[in-house]
This record gives sequence, structure tokens and C-alpha cells, in this order.
Amino acid sequence: IHSFEWTNTETDLNGYPHYMLKEIYEQPESIENAMRGRLSDEDASAHFGGLNIDAQRLRRAERIILTACGTSYHAGIVGEYLFEEFARIPVEVEYASEFRYRNPPMDQNTIVIAITQSGETADTLAALRESKRKGHPALAICNVVGSTIAREADGGVYLHAGPEIGVASTKAFTSQVTVLTLLALYLGRMRHLSSLQGTRMIEELRRIPDVIRRALKCHDKVKQIAEKYHQYNNMLYMGRQYLFPVALEGALKLKEISYIHAEGYPAAEMKHGPIALVDKSTPSIFLVPSGSIFDKVMSNLEEVKARGGPIIAIATENDPKAEYIATKADDVIFIPDVPEYLQPLVAVIPLQLFSYHVALLRGCDVDKPRNLAKSVTVE
Amino acid sequence: IHSFEWTNTETDLNGYPHYMLKEIYEQPESIENAMRGRLSDEDASAHFGGLNIDAQRLRRAERIILTACGTSYHAGIVGEYLFEEFARIPVEVEYASEFRYRNPPMDQNTIVIAITQSGETADTLAALRESKRKGHPALAICNVVGSTIAREADGGVYLHAGPEIGVASTKAFTSQVTVLTLLALYLGRMRHLSSLQGTRMIEELRRIPDVIRRALKCHDKVKQIAEKYHQYNNMLYMGRQYLFPVALEGALKLKEISYIHAEGYPAAEMKHGPIALVDKSTPSIFLVPSGSIFDKVMSNLEEVKARGGPIIAIATENDPKAEYIATKADDVIFIPDVPEYLQPLVAVIPLQLFSYHVALLRGCDVDKPRNLAKSVTVE
Repeated sequence: IHSFEWTNTETDLNGYPHYMLKEIYEQPESIENAMRGRLSDEDASAHFGGLNIDAQRLRRAERIILTACGTSYHAGIVGEYLFEEFARIPVEVEYASEFRYRNPPMDQNTIVIAITQSGETADTLAALRESKRKGHPALAICNVVGSTIAREADGGVYLHAGPEIGVASTKAFTSQVTVLTLLALYLGRMRHLSSLQGTRMIEELRRIPDVIRRALKCHDKVKQIAEKYHQYNNMLYMGRQYLFPVALEGALKLKEISYIHAEGYPAAEMKHGPIALVDKSTPSIFLVPSGSIFDKVMSNLEEVKARGGPIIAIATENDPKAEYIATKADDVIFIPDVPEYLQPLVAVIPLQLFSYHVALLRGCDVDKPRNLAKSVTVE
Repeated sequence: IHSFEWTNTETDLNGYPHYMLKEIYEQPESIENAMRGRLSDEDASAHFGGLNIDAQRLRRAERIILTACGTSYHAGIVGEYLFEEFARIPVEVEYASEFRYRNPPMDQNTIVIAITQSGETADTLAALRESKRKGHPALAICNVVGSTIAREADGGVYLHAGPEIGVASTKAFTSQVTVLTLLALYLGRMRHLSSLQGTRMIEELRRIPDVIRRALKCHDKVKQIAEKYHQYNNMLYMGRQYLFPVALEGALKLKEISYIHAEGYPAAEMKHGPIALVDKSTPSIFLVPSGSIFDKVMSNLEEVKARGGPIIAIATENDPKAEYIATKADDVIFIPDVPEYLQPLVAVIPLQLFSYHVALLRGCDVDKPRNLAKSVTVE
């Protein structure tokens, strides 16, 4: 059992007006901490000190279940896409509160991974215990060292993100996604990824802290856009593939701290119902960075535009199609270019800042939103 | 190739003011049609004429992927829970629009089932074709005989629900859920279900059309409640386990035809963010029929109540706890008692009627909501 206390410097505001803003700005560093000592050039892979599960057992894994609540659940969906792409293992993401009662079929080669910032989330803890009861290796990805879930899990990975005090999770999300990417690399290198592919991923990952520093430069632009849109009472967030969970997460941030009813959707699903909501009083935020499905998302964006919905686009800087996007969207926020699997880490930055400024402009208590607790330790 | 035309009597309004209401009232019959000739007392199982996949191949299925859009996607989630409970086969439900581009890992014993009312949904068709290209048996559950998806699938099951003309799908949903229940019975009887369990399910299923007739008697009460709540602009729908997808479906109905921003959530997830939305101007609809998680959902309901949110509860008639529910909820709608796995078929009825009346009261065109098409035949 580890004992652990946060130091004063870590829990100071350090000149920031709110913990949430401070934590948003800590992300280049917290992501770096999540990777520190875990990338191996020699193996072209990642490694972890506390997984406590041997390589042969992991190699036999035929299915992984990720279970979590809230923001951690969204990180889990990114994890599903990462594990399925790089390790080719089928993954199911389950709401911990549903999983604990549902009794889904799991064979002996199923591994369960619980994701939680606090390590004390009651539903996630119950899901972990239920998995252990059934004899499955149960790992945890969590931030708080020595927390209940960290202690009860068979093994796991710490985020090392430092204390997260703002109720709306920001740096824990990007650290969770970083750790899930490292796990995807590790599981991938056990299976289908060549050493060259592993080396390329390591290089791309090492660049991320600087990329996030650059992404944070969108702050002034995001603030202007928040001033323009903060009075709307409903918003839609649209993304596809790796950016679908980011759309969910962006909408959750806005809900949590500004009490605006925002909803995330896979962009193409919109025409099966939610587009009925679209009119001039319902803005949509579209995640359209460059990538393989750019044209598809743009065509979803145009459908919303045709129905009179205001549109904010999150696009890639220096994209040759930038001018085209600007003719379709009312406002555009640019983020640095990264490979698609790393886009969640970068695209979430402007969404965090947007929810922060909208909440401020609406006079909400950013760090202590109504009705919410930092960690939900009751069922 | 079948050719097929709807007869005039089927496309008449038959005295109903809208197709949607007509189709809601057709559900006892459309569900009966979905079961007709498919229940076998002798085998204590279901059987289907056109699955075109032999029993041994089905027995080897190690994973099923259900893919669909919109309302059919919600039926798919019910299907996931049914297949996992009765057949103990791991199921993944994928948005067709995401699945077609995502390339998830699928081994040789993975079966894909596409769910679509029209059989022409562009994204679902593309998902089906992608699955066939990869050599997976690809089945379809669809309503329109001779439609593109019905023709291209390796086999499947028709709903026989008759034409669905209202843009907001109602009877197609309950027919899809019925067919998925029959498939769960069939796959379950191949694996874990005893003959006695099969016989009991058949008996329970045969009662459903009459149960739906009784459920429709909530109509007047639902209309009164719609009059009380139709001016709210945001609503939350909460359900757990089998009723989580029903919460999603109820919210989608309201979005589609009344343009109210309604969102469905697994009830316990609410405390991880969405509860910040709750105040006296955001009503919640809670699905709390009797069953194993009644107390859990009631505790979620009480949290919302404590934050001042108006609450409509959908509860079981003759429930000894009815009085308790009435002290907590502002309004209660009662539905007949059925086993938990059949609750989606019954609990969706008041939600369909509620969205219908709210839309009428707001002066919306119920059968032809803005921005929506009956079947989405473009990507």
C-alpha cells in the first residue's frame, strides 16, 4: 500500500483564476508525465511497472472490456478504437453502473480494465470487484496513488497527472487517453505491429506535449467564439471515428459547468433524428481535422448548414482545405496536425477552453458546478 | 427477388388523424405478425424461414455485431442485452455510419446482423456490404420486402409490420425488438436454454400483443401529462439495463417530432455530469418498472428530485411500491407488468404517445417533421 500526499505547489492555483484553467494548461506536462519512463526505443514498444500480468497471459487475451463512468467512459471509447486498430483485439466499453448488474458473457481470455481518475468511483469499484469475483484479470488506469481501486486491482497504470481539483475533468482525460495509447502500442507490439511501426508511434507520441503547447495557442480565438455563442441554450457536438468520443466529451464539459444542454453525436447519425433540432438557435460544433473521413464529415456539416444551424468547426492548421471549411462554417478553430489516432488528445483542447469561457460568461462557478461532486463515491 | 406492393387499406389513415398515431395503435397486431408462424411449441424455440445459415455455423458463432442507425440502433442495444442474456454470445452494437469506416477486428466466427426498417438506409447498406466483403455471414432484420438490404443480405428476418409511413418510427421499433427476442430464444435454445425455459419464453411472448393493448390504455393519462409538460424545452430520459435503450428511443422520438432537446442516459451515469442540467425547467422521465434494479433507479430518481427537477415516472401497475413512487415523482404513468427482458416493448408505448401529444401541442407536423426523411438513402 502506497501512502501519498499532494504537495502544496501542486494544489496552488499558481496565478490561474480557476483550477480548471490551470489543469487545462498543465496538459503538456501531465501527458509527458503519463509517458515518462514508459517508452522503450529498444523494444519499439511501451512498458509498465505495475501491470502484474505476464506477457503470455496478455497475448492470450481475446477480448478486453473497458469500464468507466463520465469522462473516463469517453476515454474508454478512444481506448476501444486504439486497441482495435493497433492490437486487433475486440473491445467493449461498458458503463460501470450498467456492467455491474448486467452479467454479460465473458470467456476466460477476457481482461477487464477499469478507468477512473479518483480511484474511488463507486460504480467503477463495484464493476472491478464483480470482474475479479468472476476470475478475470482486472486492471485499473487511475490517477490517485493508493486509492481503493488502485489497491484492489490486480495491476494497472497510474496517470501521474498530479491532483485534479476542478470538478470538470480535463487533464485526467488526456492522461487516460495517453496511457491507453501506450497500452495499445504495447498490446499491438505483442501482436501485429512491426518494430518500425512501433518506433514511428513512439516518435509521434514524443511530439505530443509540444503539439499540445501549440494547440493551447487557440485560446484567444476560442474566447472570442465563446463570447459570440455563450447565450445559446442548446448545442450539438459532432465527430466521427476517433473524434466521436471527443464530441461526447466536449458536450459533457459544456453540460457540467455551463448547464447548457449539449449533446455529442457521431456526425452521420444526426440525419437519423437529431438534425430535427437544428435551427438558427442551435449551434453545432463539428470536429473536422484533416484525415481519411474529412469529406464525409464536411458533407454532414453541410447538411446542418443547409438547415440554418450556426457552425463552429475544429480544423487542422495549414490544411489546404482551410479556405473551403471557412466558406461553410461560421467560425473555425485551428489545431495542429497529428495522425488520426492522436487527434483526440489535441481536438479536446479547444473544447475544454470553450466550455470554460462559456461557463465564465454565464456566471457559473467553473470549479464547483451545481449538483456535481468531484468523485462520485456513492452509487 | 420478391416484388411487393402495399395495399390501399394498409396506407389509409383509417380514421386516425396521423400515421404516427395509427402506427402506434397497430403495435399489438404488428408484434403479432412479427411472431406469426415463428414460435414452435414442439422445439420450445423460434424458427425462421429465411435465415439461410445452418445451425452448425450459428452454433459456432462467437460474436455477433449488430449494426444500424437511429431507432434501429436502439433496437440493436436491446438485442445486445437479449442475446447476451439468453444466448451468452458477446454482442457489439455499432453505428452503421462508423462501422463502415472503422475496420474493427472480427474473427471468422463473427456474424453481422443489419437492422433497418426500410432496407434502404445508405450507411447500413454500406456496413452490410463491408461485412460481406470480409466474408462474414451478414443477415438483415428489415421490414420492406425486396428492399436492397433484404436482397443483398445472406439471409434474414422480415418484420411484416406493414408500411410505416410516419417519419418517427414506432411499430418498426417494437417489431424489431420482437424479432430480436425470437432470435435470442432461437440462439439461446442452441446453447444454454432448457426446453422448459424456452416454453416459458414462448408463453410470455404470446401474451405480449394483449399486454400492449392494455398498455395503450395509458393514452388519456399520457395526454394530460403532455399538456402539463409540453412547454419545456429540455428533457432527460433515464433508464437502466433493458430500459437504457428505451430511454434513448424515447428521447429520440421527442427530438424528432417536437424539436425539444431530449437526451437519454443510463440513469446512474447522470451523476457524472448531466445532473448539472437539472433544475425546475428540465423535467426527467424515469423508467422505473418493477424488477431487480427498481431500488437503484429510484435512488437515481431521488437525486434528481433533490435538485428540483420535475419527474415523470413510468411504473408498473399494481406494484406494491406504487404509492412510494407517487410520493417521489410529480406524475406517474402505469404500464402492465412483464418480465424484465420484455419491458422495452411495453415501456416504449407511453413514450411514443408522449412525444406524439407534445408535438401536436407545439403545433409540429407529426408525420413530416422538419429536416428529416423517412429513410435516409444518402450517406
